[in-house]
Amino acid sequence: MIIVLKPECTKEQRISFSEMLKENYDVKVNVWDGVHSTVLGLIGDTTQVDIEYIDAQDIVESVKRVQEPYKKANRKFHPENTVIEVGNVKIGDGSLNIMAGPCSVESEEQIVEIAKQVKASGATLLRGGAFKPRTSPYAFQGLKAEGLDLLKIARKETGLPIVTEIMRTSHIDMFESVDIIQVGARNMQNFELLKELGKIDKPILLKRGLSATIEEWLMSAEYIMAGGNSKVILCERGIRTYETFTRNTLDIAAIPIVKRLSHLPVIADPSHASGKSWLVEDLAMASVAAGADGLIIEVHNDPPHALSDGAQSLTPKQFDKVAKKLFSLKSSLVK
Amino acid sequence: MIIVLKPECTKEQRISFSEMLKENYDVKVNVWDGVHSTVLGLIGDTTQVDIEYIDAQDIVESVKRVQEPYKKANRKFHPENTVIEVGNVKIGDGSLNIMAGPCSVESEEQIVEIAKQVKASGATLLRGGAFKPRTSPYAFQGLKAEGLDLLKIARKETGLPIVTEIMRTSHIDMFESVDIIQVGARNMQNFELLKELGKIDKPILLKRGLSATIEEWLMSAEYIMAGGNSKVILCERGIRTYETFTRNTLDIAAIPIVKRLSHLPVIADPSHASGKSWLVEDLAMASVAAGADGLIIEVHNDPPHALSDGAQSLTPKQFDKVAKKLFSLKSSLVK
Amino acid sequence: MIIVLKPECTKEQRISFSEMLKENYDVKVNVWDGVHSTVLGLIGDTTQVDIEYIDAQDIVESVKRVQEPYKKANRKFHPENTVIEVGNVKIGDGSLNIMAGPCSVESEEQIVEIAKQVKASGATLLRGGAFKPRTSPYAFQGLKAEGLDLLKIARKETGLPIVTEIMRTSHIDMFESVDIIQVGARNMQNFELLKELGKIDKPILLKRGLSATIEEWLMSAEYIMAGGNSKVILCERGIRTYETFTRNTLDIAAIPIVKRLSHLPVIADPSHASGKSWLVEDLAMASVAAGADGLIIEVHNDPPHALSDGAQSLTPKQFDKVAKKLFSLKSSLVK
Amino acid sequence: MIIVLKPECTKEQRISFSEMLKENYDVKVNVWDGVHSTVLGLIGDTTQVDIEYIDAQDIVESVKRVQEPYKKANRKFHPENTVIEVGNVKIGDGSLNIMAGPCSVESEEQIVEIAKQVKASGATLLRGGAFKPRTSPYAFQGLKAEGLDLLKIARKETGLPIVTEIMRTSHIDMFESVDIIQVGARNMQNFELLKELGKIDKPILLKRGLSATIEEWLMSAEYIMAGGNSKVILCERGIRTYETFTRNTLDIAAIPIVKRLSHLPVIADPSHASGKSWLVEDLAMASVAAGADGLIIEVHNDPPHALSDGAQSLTPKQFDKVAKKLFSLKSSLVK
Repeated sequence: MIIVLKPECTKEQRISFSEMLKENYDVKVNVWDGVHSTVLGLIGDTTQVDIEYIDAQDIVESVKRVQEPYKKANRKFHPENTVIEVGNVKIGDGSLNIMAGPCSVESEEQIVEIAKQVKASGATLLRGGAFKPRTSPYAFQGLKAEGLDLLKIARKETGLPIVTEIMRTSHIDMFESVDIIQVGARNMQNFELLKELGKIDKPILLKRGLSATIEEWLMSAEYIMAGGNSKVILCERGIRTYETFTRNTLDIAAIPIVKRLSHLPVIADPSHASGKSWLVEDLAMASVAAGADGLIIEVHNDPPHALSDGAQSLTPKQFDKVAKKLFSLKSSLVK
Repeated sequence: MIIVLKPECTKEQRISFSEMLKENYDVKVNVWDGVHSTVLGLIGDTTQVDIEYIDAQDIVESVKRVQEPYKKANRKFHPENTVIEVGNVKIGDGSLNIMAGPCSVESEEQIVEIAKQVKASGATLLRGGAFKPRTSPYAFQGLKAEGLDLLKIARKETGLPIVTEIMRTSHIDMFESVDIIQVGARNMQNFELLKELGKIDKPILLKRGLSATIEEWLMSAEYIMAGGNSKVILCERGIRTYETFTRNTLDIAAIPIVKRLSHLPVIADPSHASGKSWLVEDLAMASVAAGADGLIIEVHNDPPHALSDGAQSLTPKQFDKVAKKLFSLKSSLVK
Repeated sequence: MIIVLKPECTKEQRISFSEMLKENYDVKVNVWDGVHSTVLGLIGDTTQVDIEYIDAQDIVESVKRVQEPYKKANRKFHPENTVIEVGNVKIGDGSLNIMAGPCSVESEEQIVEIAKQVKASGATLLRGGAFKPRTSPYAFQGLKAEGLDLLKIARKETGLPIVTEIMRTSHIDMFESVDIIQVGARNMQNFELLKELGKIDKPILLKRGLSATIEEWLMSAEYIMAGGNSKVILCERGIRTYETFTRNTLDIAAIPIVKRLSHLPVIADPSHASGKSWLVEDLAMASVAAGADGLIIEVHNDPPHALSDGAQSLTPKQFDKVAKKLFSLKSSLVK
Repeated sequence: MIIVLKPECTKEQRISFSEMLKENYDVKVNVWDGVHSTVLGLIGDTTQVDIEYIDAQDIVESVKRVQEPYKKANRKFHPENTVIEVGNVKIGDGSLNIMAGPCSVESEEQIVEIAKQVKASGATLLRGGAFKPRTSPYAFQGLKAEGLDLLKIARKETGLPIVTEIMRTSHIDMFESVDIIQVGARNMQNFELLKELGKIDKPILLKRGLSATIEEWLMSAEYIMAGGNSKVILCERGIRTYETFTRNTLDIAAIPIVKRLSHLPVIADPSHASGKSWLVEDLAMASVAAGADGLIIEVHNDPPHALSDGAQSLTPKQFDKVAKKLFSLKSSLVK
């Protein structure tokens, strides 16, 4: 961390400020005395240093981080890829994993049928919403506990591990037998939820917030990891921009960036990123070409009658075609 | 709601679709048969109609809402301003209320001293964080329950009602004696929290999410109100844009817009919107001139040593000067 | 176009408004009289209808376009792909074309050397800036006319057609022998320049503006095409968002969207989109997987000494490796 | 400017890099040798230093500007407010100037009538578009040269100086007798136009670009000033964000920020910022409260029949009411 002091800062102020820094944090302070200004360099573990606090000092002109503020999620301190195992499925080992299924679980028949079909097409995990975050209080909010039970039935029928979204801390026990717990975009900075998920031993699929920077997203992963749970899968699902043609803007660059900054696996969600089923294939292909470890894709047996997100769902038949292309692309890249 | 059907839609499809609409929702369906396309008009309470579901239909070209999707927060159905009373304080009655205090409660001495000073300057409510949402898990997270106790002491000493942020559903009981419960920007779409807050009888200060549209913000208010709690105060606190000079961009237009669309009181937070103490006065003045019912301003007795958000805090002396200007502006506007 | 009238609109007002519409534009007006509101439907060529003008009418509640406001760039009226020929090069015919070269032309030796190298790696066009738009008036502004001459020498030596940016209308004559004229992001809505380029018979590479919607971008293409020049190549080069890790955010979805909405060829610029050379390969791969007709990539023999944009340039050796992967990906997709 | 070198940078590399910096720019280089990294500090006029070029060096980890990259527009080097005189009107002297008039000049009768009315209400300058930048090539593009003539007639009749927009370099001669030349948002980075306007001796009203940062906006002012013309008036007119309720988002904080960073006068455009006439008053009030030196407001005698931007225009009667409130606010602030 580099701190530029104001020209009017006296030597006494500078010394007392440096002392404070050394006392409060585990850092050494180097001083570089220029003609017009003085610069302090903090050496050591600066993840604990509160940059806003430093910036608020009267004598400080500006501050600049040199090191990233996250540690456990940082590839620098953990160069090898993290591979997350769920049953036989390995996420982050260089293979391509597709999580597929409906936005909302609607009935046993629906979820079992879709599960069988997406499995046949190569999906390795089943997604499905039981608790649904909806913008309107009047919209369908999911089958809740019953939805979880139906997912388990579908898992039993197909062997596919299940991925589903949690919305409140008090539900963690209820999610005991879920294979991967998803934290939705709107809860990416629900820090209380993240802290609790840090205490359990289960993979967490952490979606990027609607307007979260890559650094904030990794800081949210750090929240979970700081609690002891290092099984975090990151999911790029589009960010909010001024462009309204798509529901969100898939930040394709986030995939290689996160792979470089962090050792955690990264997947993409082309369904939510676009909000339009006809865009899913192209965005999924782009994500794989950019290095994604997996995809999460909405598939519904009857999109026009889906209780949520029908506009962005593929039919099982469409999904089959897309999955073939994705696996073919993946194998051509590996060669 | 207006639904444009695709040219290839047959008469049978159109009739069966209309029947479905009438069955599922409490609406009448008018048909306008053009040469090249057919348009359906839904008359009635369309807040319950799931626009995404309609849009997902094969035969639908596009959909357009004519009515807003919120009802209880809508001025059309509640033309008079809602006035929220907290002790002697009335928010939304045309007067100017200032909530002032530190970002974080740090000690009894600190919070009581600041409370006395901001009261002397005309503040009518005391703000202070006990539970702090911080981007980094390694940053100061607030004094928690102890912070709430200290706020109550300051209230006892000054008579100022207290405003503080809640971060999880399970804390609602602990917030029993808080006067106004704040929902932070990051939790604006924590729907589970909103639902629970809808069940209690206490004013909720609902901050706008970092990248929430005005409509989404009002829908979050609707979540609380749909549960039975109609005491919602809205707070514009800046949105995320590409401009990095300020921490956020104060959307000043949101103030008159929300006053027009809704009957709920609206206040502004110039401290978080800018992240810079030297901007607070100008943004506060602008907010009052634009029609805000109040302000929430960070005041700290020793900003450089504040444990959070020091860079944007005013000293009590600075606050006193700003408050004088704000009340003077307010009274000149009323004339 | 669908126009919702206000409930208080009288029958006389509605009739006189309809008459005005029919007189001013080449449209028929259908009236759909609902119980609570009246809707007008305009049938015909509504590209000429000024939607803002309609929206300003006292009696109008809201307006909605059903048809796109562009015609010549619209795939609906020109279903086949436009293929643009430059010498032997065909852009938009299903093949992959790479335009490569330095941000700025710096010397004969530099541009000729790079041209030879990128040609050897498979590039089919040579890019290079002679007139440079720079944020600072104190930064290097390009070799100007001399730069154009050097590009022509490089073309002579290699046979590669040249692509370079124009910055003012009065330079059009000087660009006579340039093969493709580039309009930069900052000039995407320099309508006077677009109008003049519409009068010449030469391919125009139209970059998307920093914060242009897809519709505005296509409207700028329409400006050129309305003048008679239908040889427009669109280039997605990243948009401005709140994320600062990359210089811009590559809107990967724009590629398939533009291919669907328009018949014009679309290429991507991974160099400007990211601003970081290590991201170029992944973004280029993603663009090809998403359906791009080509790429424009910055290549410099000595990036650290490039007079502009060194941080995002590949060396010829790096480019060679990337190009091989891109052509291999392209051929695997075609299969 | 502070340059952090990579840990692997050798002493020889560092020395040769420092020599290069001293040779190319008028700066001294201070070296601060830390245990883990080396930091260089550049002292002197760093406005000429190309930050991207530095950042592209292999041995450079990161770079940080301490000084602003603009000089002539910088308040640090010109502490007093610049006051721009146009006839008897002084902009930037602490008074409030309102530029009012129609979006487009439509006829002699129209412009003269409006000019008289806005003058009577206290406007000190007449605005009106003769050349109109329109998103669609099929929309009304202004009366062009005839529009300029009509503006001159209105000036003759009322004595109000005229403000109108230029769209191409070759028109500068035609704008000889215009009092203030406006550069629109879309041309804020039309650097060729800015350079030419730097050579004339006439006030330039420089609108902020749709997605321009405050620094880029000031750099565009610097372009004009670097050419010798220091009469630049800045105009905040709203930026592009994800919020679609308003046409743009008025960045109210930009007003006090620019006043602090620069000595140039700043005005606001509440009409374009909102796109809705009912919002103009509140945004204008907020702008004055935030310290604006003036306003530019669209006024039309018959908004529903305006040939452009009718939806955001006030009638002369509405304008009269708003102007009264604005002058009253201004005088209450000065007290």
